[in-house]
Order: sequence, then C-alpha cells, then structure tokens
Amino acid sequence: MPDPAARKAPQPATSQASEYAPEVRFRLRLTQGARIAVGPGRIELLEAVREAGSITAAARGLGMSYRRAWMLLDDLNRCLRAPVVESVHGGAQGGGSRLTDTGLELVRLYRHIEQTAQRACGEDIEALKGLLARP
Amino acid sequence: MPDPAARKAPQPATSQASEYAPEVRFRLRLTQGARIAVGPGRIELLEAVREAGSITAAARGLGMSYRRAWMLLDDLNRCLRAPVVESVHGGAQGGGSRLTDTGLELVRLYRHIEQTAQRACGEDIEALKGLLARP
Repeated sequence: MPDPAARKAPQPATSQASEYAPEVRFRLRLTQGARIAVGPGRIELLEAVREAGSITAAARGLGMSYRRAWMLLDDLNRCLRAPVVESVHGGAQGGGSRLTDTGLELVRLYRHIEQTAQRACGEDIEALKGLLARP
Repeated sequence: MPDPAARKAPQPATSQASEYAPEVRFRLRLTQGARIAVGPGRIELLEAVREAGSITAAARGLGMSYRRAWMLLDDLNRCLRAPVVESVHGGAQGGGSRLTDTGLELVRLYRHIEQTAQRACGEDIEALKGLLARP
C-alpha cells in the first residue's frame, strides 16, 4: 500500500465535497467514568418528545424503536437527580409524555452551551474551514 | 414494558457512577455534506503521528490497524488544501512520517477551539453537571 505521507501535492476536492459548504458542529458529551450520561442523541430524543408529546411518536419521528427510546430515557432518568420525562394522563390527547422541568432545563442548557461555544470560537472555526480544500 | 415517564422519584446513582466525577467533553466535527472531514479520531491520530514519528507506531499506539490509519490520513489529505502528513527519509531513525505545517496547524486549531469552548461555557457546564445524580 502506498504511504499517504508520500502525497505532497494538494488533492483536488471531490465533486461531492465541493457541492457543500463546510459546517462545524460541537457535540457535547457529559460522561461519568466510561458511561455517557448526556449526549447529542439523548438531547435530540428529548426534543422530539417535547414536540410530539409522546415517546412513541418521538421514536417514530427519529426512526428509532420504541424500546430503544424507552431505554435511553430510562437511562437518562437514572443519571440525573430527577426524571426528565413524565406521563400525562387523560386530556384531549388521551395522555402521553412530556418533559419535566429538569428535562426542559437539560435541553436548554445543552443547546445554549453549543451556541455559546460556536460563538466564542468563531475566528478559529473560520481558520479551520480555511484549511479545507475548495472546489 | 413499563413507561419510563412513570419514574417520579430521583434514582440513586449506581455505585459505578458515584466513583467518577462527571466530565464534559466537546467533540468538534467539521463536515462537508454527509462527509466528516475533521473529527476527534483523526485529530488523535495526527497527534499520535506527531509524537511517534511514524504511522505504524501511531497506529499501534492507538490499537488501530496500519491500514485503517493510512485510510484516515489519506482521506484527511484529500479533504484539506494541503497534505497533513509527509514522509521523512533517512536520518538516525531511518525515516518515518511527520506532520506538515498544515497538519500541525490543524491540530493546534482543533485543540484550541475545544479549550476556548470549555472556558466560554464554564458556568453552563457546571449547571449541567448539577443536574446529575450524586452519590
């Protein structure tokens, strides 16, 4: 196999890459030991429950099994001081699930941290994008 | 299967979780369309090449096959304006690989962004940690 270090000349961008502007995303993870307590997938799931008003609909919207969604939320509940999701019984919708105050605060903090980080690092992020091959 | 929303009371932390202080990590990803150009795994590999002075030794240190390391570096070279790794021939070490100026700059920017983000979000990060269950 040839050594990639032998590539001395800049490579032309592929036509696929040149169709899209580069994007920088922060993925924030909160871990305890080897265990991921809070990460982007769980936050996305919480947002889906908040919008859909039920775990079933949230899971469906994310292309996730109900069982997987349930396990992620159950694990989140165990990681936090208070549960993030609670049942709603009755009402016009016939019940469902909604985020608790803790769940709402978790989502708010997580997204706020991402936005703050993106703003604080604007200059370096542009410099990083500048290293990418252009069409 | 019981509804996780039914958990009303805070869950006790497991003994495993209580042994470790929570840690917050930013994982920065630079994407073009669906393609990841720069991410934590590639930066870690570049740092390993920088320290070890060879792709073979870097791959070994990360428990990665030489082939996998080569492909990641080759892809990085294609994503950027200039290659990130170059061959070193001869010398006391009998040759190897080292980062180019572009490679060094990429690692520096990436790590600096992570540090800046962590500093800028200190208060929110502490609030996020405060939502976690304690022993």
